[in-house]
Amino acid sequence: MTVTTPEMPGLHPVGDTARHIPPASVARLTIYLRALNSLLAEGIERVSSEELADAAGVNSPMLRKDLSYLGSYGTRGVGYDVQYLNRQISIALGLTLDWRVAILGAGNLGRALAGYSGFVSRGFEIVAIFDADQLVVGSEVGYLRVSAVDDLETVLERTRTNMAVLAVPASVAQELCDRLVAAGISSILSFAPVVLQVPPHVQLRKVDMSTELQILAYHAQRAQEPDLGPISRAQ
Amino acid sequence: MTVTTPEMPGLHPVGDTARHIPPASVARLTIYLRALNSLLAEGIERVSSEELADAAGVNSPMLRKDLSYLGSYGTRGVGYDVQYLNRQISIALGLTLDWRVAILGAGNLGRALAGYSGFVSRGFEIVAIFDADQLVVGSEVGYLRVSAVDDLETVLERTRTNMAVLAVPASVAQELCDRLVAAGISSILSFAPVVLQVPPHVQLRKVDMSTELQILAYHAQRAQEPDLGPISRAQ
Repeated sequence: MTVTTPEMPGLHPVGDTARHIPPASVARLTIYLRALNSLLAEGIERVSSEELADAAGVNSPMLRKDLSYLGSYGTRGVGYDVQYLNRQISIALGLTLDWRVAILGAGNLGRALAGYSGFVSRGFEIVAIFDADQLVVGSEVGYLRVSAVDDLETVLERTRTNMAVLAVPASVAQELCDRLVAAGISSILSFAPVVLQVPPHVQLRKVDMSTELQILAYHAQRAQEPDLGPISRAQ
Repeated sequence: MTVTTPEMPGLHPVGDTARHIPPASVARLTIYLRALNSLLAEGIERVSSEELADAAGVNSPMLRKDLSYLGSYGTRGVGYDVQYLNRQISIALGLTLDWRVAILGAGNLGRALAGYSGFVSRGFEIVAIFDADQLVVGSEVGYLRVSAVDDLETVLERTRTNMAVLAVPASVAQELCDRLVAAGISSILSFAPVVLQVPPHVQLRKVDMSTELQILAYHAQRAQEPDLGPISRAQ
């Protein structure tokens, strides 16, 4: 993985550089943010790049490179101001905007997502949850009541939803995705184990539980290979 | 992102090249596998690189490069044998090995994972699910009965678990992770929103729902920027 922006000191206003952060750095910024939130919770006000890198599980040159995209370089011998850096990363990631999230699917996964405390603390407000099952519609999930998926368009408009999470079976994911797009939702996170087609203006991210396990299996296999005989490899 | 292995034709036995697949290609191989499984389900026997690339949402030079790590080049005008390619990718990812997975935490997320059909179809067998809540211990989740986390080590040994999923609150994740490692589990997927420390020999992957939403927010912000005034950027 090659980061093409040169690592050079200087001041870059966030509003300008936030457009050009490489995907791998964006992913790591979310990890730094999590570590900074833990530090804040412990009442720690300053952190060195080595400490923060350690807490995030990366090396400190990589951390410094990632933070350089925000124009944040810390001060030698003093480190980073935890609260300020937290704020800088939040702004760069767009977390200070008003994200109103609807969850489609009130099964175990949808309920797990609706109850996930990490969303609210990062600026994501869950404003609606939908299900197709009439036995589930109207029941309570946290502080929300499950809406009927038949009322999708009406409820999305009323709740001013601008981001949606698909926690539905693969068989209905594309149809619901199309309805979301038609209703003007252009940011969609899908947990459905299926490839979805969306127009170019729509931001779609896919999370597949089995993908993560498969990637883990690949690395685990490599780590375990010396112990495996040819028979288990072949079968 | 730069792929360092040159794209050149030739035969690479899977057992040899599986060690050197770049992380981004590993992630995409899981997507091709998903697309191939859909084709198999439809009874389709051959697929062109363009069709498979389309189904996976990548361009076909990238697909061909990724598949070249497996020594798979297709045949011009004929394409790939769906079943054979499926098998090749499965072997390369280590999915033909015997993965016996324990889930720690029988809340909504743990139950969602335990009931996820995509695991079994990819070679992951859920062999145990644990919870600390005595009211939950003994209850049924799919075909499993929830075990007490107090019995973790005994049950892991009895079920010959070799992979674990942490679907527990952040506050207990490190302690349970330590117990898994001490019990000899070296492949762990964590959904806990916290940075975990593990010894170097342990493969740990973290999935954080809010990370995915944050990455989505970053891209959505970029896409929406023309519509946003400076006030919403600053706040």
